[in-house]
Amino acid sequence: MSQRVNAESLKVFCVRAFQRVGVNEQDARIAADILVAADLRGVLSHGVAHLKRYVDGLCTDVINPHPQERVVVENLATATLDADAGLGQPVSYRAMQKAIQKAQQVGAGFVTVRNSNHFGIAGYYAMMALEHDCIGLAMTNASPKAVPTFGRHALLGTNPIAVAAPASKARPFVLDMATTTVALGKIEIANQLDKPIPAGWAIDRNGNPAVDSHRTLDEFKRNVGGGLLPLGGEGELFSGYKGYGLAVWVETFTALLSGAAFASTTYPKTFEGEALPANIGHFFGAWRIDSFRPPEEFKAAMDDLQTLIKSAPKADGHDRIYIHGEKEFEATEINQREGIPLNRKVMDELHAVAQQLQIEMDF
Amino acid sequence: MSQRVNAESLKVFCVRAFQRVGVNEQDARIAADILVAADLRGVLSHGVAHLKRYVDGLCTDVINPHPQERVVVENLATATLDADAGLGQPVSYRAMQKAIQKAQQVGAGFVTVRNSNHFGIAGYYAMMALEHDCIGLAMTNASPKAVPTFGRHALLGTNPIAVAAPASKARPFVLDMATTTVALGKIEIANQLDKPIPAGWAIDRNGNPAVDSHRTLDEFKRNVGGGLLPLGGEGELFSGYKGYGLAVWVETFTALLSGAAFASTTYPKTFEGEALPANIGHFFGAWRIDSFRPPEEFKAAMDDLQTLIKSAPKADGHDRIYIHGEKEFEATEINQREGIPLNRKVMDELHAVAQQLQIEMDF
Repeated sequence: MSQRVNAESLKVFCVRAFQRVGVNEQDARIAADILVAADLRGVLSHGVAHLKRYVDGLCTDVINPHPQERVVVENLATATLDADAGLGQPVSYRAMQKAIQKAQQVGAGFVTVRNSNHFGIAGYYAMMALEHDCIGLAMTNASPKAVPTFGRHALLGTNPIAVAAPASKARPFVLDMATTTVALGKIEIANQLDKPIPAGWAIDRNGNPAVDSHRTLDEFKRNVGGGLLPLGGEGELFSGYKGYGLAVWVETFTALLSGAAFASTTYPKTFEGEALPANIGHFFGAWRIDSFRPPEEFKAAMDDLQTLIKSAPKADGHDRIYIHGEKEFEATEINQREGIPLNRKVMDELHAVAQQLQIEMDF
Repeated sequence: MSQRVNAESLKVFCVRAFQRVGVNEQDARIAADILVAADLRGVLSHGVAHLKRYVDGLCTDVINPHPQERVVVENLATATLDADAGLGQPVSYRAMQKAIQKAQQVGAGFVTVRNSNHFGIAGYYAMMALEHDCIGLAMTNASPKAVPTFGRHALLGTNPIAVAAPASKARPFVLDMATTTVALGKIEIANQLDKPIPAGWAIDRNGNPAVDSHRTLDEFKRNVGGGLLPLGGEGELFSGYKGYGLAVWVETFTALLSGAAFASTTYPKTFEGEALPANIGHFFGAWRIDSFRPPEEFKAAMDDLQTLIKSAPKADGHDRIYIHGEKEFEATEINQREGIPLNRKVMDELHAVAQQLQIEMDF
């Protein structure tokens, strides 16, 4: 059902596609690297499966192929960038670099980005901090999919938070999580398999727990109500207001602080239903470890914390406790060696992109 | 069942108690203000219900009544403080002040604290940023109560995260959440009422969902396994690994970065079972809004986001969507006016403290 494709070949193809629609070589390489990094990490929902969407956006100028990025405000530890509606990846890469530079100078650095687009996996940017002995943070807002506690309409994005911190002998801690219980992709999979979904993932148009995956997706797509539940689920019994609060936190840092569109005002459309620039926002941060503590002590303590957790007694039926990022590091090793497993649908889309842009596909 | 006590009288009593056991007046006032602020906000679990515990700690030198706080490392945007095993509140208050000063100078400021004690409510410190047109952040690690996904022993604290951001006409957004599904207090209440607990709050000694509140508390107290589940619950179905990841994030910033004890190595005991200093850690941050965007624009956008959310259609059976902090602001108004409702158990403890320390109690 899936074909393994070499990561380098996939990158070359993405660079070719981005360049053909007007993106400069440097930005094309950054965007390609970040897309393929998601696939390598096993986060296939955020990899080349998105290429066609980006290409279509660039072809219709909903995504600006020639953005004039600019610094709007700057201080020693902070900055706000305007992405001029360009691809989300290149501006995010540079924003995170800037945050790291600031951290190297004054101990911590933060950069918000407005007027941007989908930036791929949040974890990539947070992990950029690791080689500099910094702790990295990345957040973004997104199209409205999540319903606030006691509501019944999707207003907030899946609003991910990513945090990466280095270890010494162990692997880095890399948390990369949507603030909803699950991503929409899990409901799409249940829909394809004709399966119900567990109460706690989504609510229906009336604000009651949804179990029918077909109906949930249908209502969601027709925009009549319903959507994903925040982490913690429906109502207050399992503290869904905490996931909802994390999502508002992300909106605050990515959109309110940068001046991007927030919540359901992102991804606006004309009266006729045509897409306008998404105007989403991102937030990047870096803390330089040796501005708090000698990095070798920090990293040894991170090793010890991981050992403590992983060696603890396991729950019935389980033989392993994971540290965040561990599964993705293991997937990267396999996919680097054996190629990235792309399913038929994604392969068909890549073929369509090749044909549409009249570019070569070496796999 | 409960007696309403005037907030000022309660503060005066707490100051008196702290001073009697050797805390200087300034620190006694800070600690009293933070304790009573929790009660005012309706977070009774973190208010004067803790006074006896603090007094006992100070009497036995497990909490140092005369700490020599010091700055261990400092950079323009960062610092690490050593609390010398003193009360958690005064050092945390000063650490947050320092973070705000740094934010005023370079745009953002962060202070970690090691060798500290229970600091009360996280939200108090985050909210200190508000009057300076800053966004505030506070985190702390804590005694082990939470079980990592697929484990069955409590290793991590309830590790709260608090974020506060100002609005213009609306109230500030104040998120103050434990990273577990619920706090232990909810299980204690079920236990007192002879009620079961919903599967998803805690697990038993074998790592299976716990429903018997008596047994859960008993196993937890005998330290034979079991404990609170992270936000998202048991296993992976509702993404409990996300709450577990948030808890590790908090350990990373509060303990690994400061050099405090982490996870289940906090609150150490001698071989004979005597308590040693807790050595927990905190993390405080402030971002100065005008280093990113004009504060009046930010605050107007915060108003708009809150209006958008609150005016959205409600789920069946609900007529109101809350913004984080709203319930606590309303509780504060009532408790400020009518007094803080202290139950019999807490009143008895306060009487015991008064008798033990031979101090006056004016209520």
